[in-house]
Amino acid sequence: MAELRALVFDVFGTLVDWRSSVVDAATEAGRRAGVSADWPAVTDDWRREYPPALARARNEPSWRDLDALQRETLEDVLTRHGVDLPASEREVLVQTWRRLRPWPDTVAGMDRLRGGFVTATLSNGHVALLVDLVRFGGWRVDVVLSAELAASYKPDPAVYLRGAQLLGRAPKEVGMVAAHAGDLEAAAGVGLRPLFVRRPDEWGTGAPEDPPDLPGVVVADGLDDLAAQLGC
Amino acid sequence: MAELRALVFDVFGTLVDWRSSVVDAATEAGRRAGVSADWPAVTDDWRREYPPALARARNEPSWRDLDALQRETLEDVLTRHGVDLPASEREVLVQTWRRLRPWPDTVAGMDRLRGGFVTATLSNGHVALLVDLVRFGGWRVDVVLSAELAASYKPDPAVYLRGAQLLGRAPKEVGMVAAHAGDLEAAAGVGLRPLFVRRPDEWGTGAPEDPPDLPGVVVADGLDDLAAQLGC
Repeated sequence: MAELRALVFDVFGTLVDWRSSVVDAATEAGRRAGVSADWPAVTDDWRREYPPALARARNEPSWRDLDALQRETLEDVLTRHGVDLPASEREVLVQTWRRLRPWPDTVAGMDRLRGGFVTATLSNGHVALLVDLVRFGGWRVDVVLSAELAASYKPDPAVYLRGAQLLGRAPKEVGMVAAHAGDLEAAAGVGLRPLFVRRPDEWGTGAPEDPPDLPGVVVADGLDDLAAQLGC
Repeated sequence: MAELRALVFDVFGTLVDWRSSVVDAATEAGRRAGVSADWPAVTDDWRREYPPALARARNEPSWRDLDALQRETLEDVLTRHGVDLPASEREVLVQTWRRLRPWPDTVAGMDRLRGGFVTATLSNGHVALLVDLVRFGGWRVDVVLSAELAASYKPDPAVYLRGAQLLGRAPKEVGMVAAHAGDLEAAAGVGLRPLFVRRPDEWGTGAPEDPPDLPGVVVADGLDDLAAQLGC
């Protein structure tokens, strides 16, 4: 890892616990509106709509942010579940993606990793959302980078290359940290170093995703283990 | 100031003391190379080349970063002063813009302002340079924004508008903080709120620039005074 100079981090699932945060917010929204539903199932289905929504958005002529995409997918998912949530409460849920709890190791782990490397987000969340999310969670990166700055969405290779370029680094000097194999495969495809972090509670199952089968992949149980393996 | 939600900061001169930092680095570089010169005069002339270099760069077909522009202007200025500094030492001086000392009130003042507002750089320095500069100085912003993200340079209105857009804010919700009237006039021209900070030592003269004559301009003696006037 002699050449590694900067780390870029996936955010949803890797640094923050979207599922329990959104389930809690949806349960509250339902209570306020007097609407009952299987909120964990709604939340999981909403999240499953995320990759195809991004894929569609990449082919649209003008870039739209995650708030716009999640507003649409939430409406679809609620309709499918037969849940009639008022527009104001739907908007609360869209905005909840700015108030997702960090994993227990995120605040201290990110500080430790920042001691050894330049750190950045590299998320499909837009800059404004990420700024709110980082402030909410009280964690820290050197710089907020987003797919927005490439006017695309991961796993488009352009997003990873734009991240490295904005950091003034060659792709091989940048490590991509994620709990998702697909993100790392795409990053490694354009030369970034893959660093996999197991997040067994992302879907509330206790079972993490399998790491990607990539040469030189680092597999870590959380951010402290990652920092230890990287020597910081 | 009820609507003000975010502050974007000019950096060179407003948050960091470029002049004494560059004079020191140039004096050291000259000593190492055995070259004598009036380094404060070279430094001031180098800085005076900065606005016209940016103006020329805005009209070039592809955007170039500050390192590239400052490499050129340094060579011009050294030639004009009859100073023959080796290429390696010239590069040290170009890179010195990543290691500029913050003003004495910057670290604490930026933390205080971050308690009340989302804070961002909005500098003509590129993202990679700013990341190094913020780490070097140990100060903190929520997000590093740069003219690079508009592929232009201040005072192009596009830079201020891109900053507000990336923060998800209307221009009137964003305050531009700078020690330079021209920066604030351009920002106010597209609706940002002008916040002027006196920096009497920017040019080593003890005399700050005059504040701009703009409606509603806030004029502050440093960041603590600014924070007090903004109620944070």
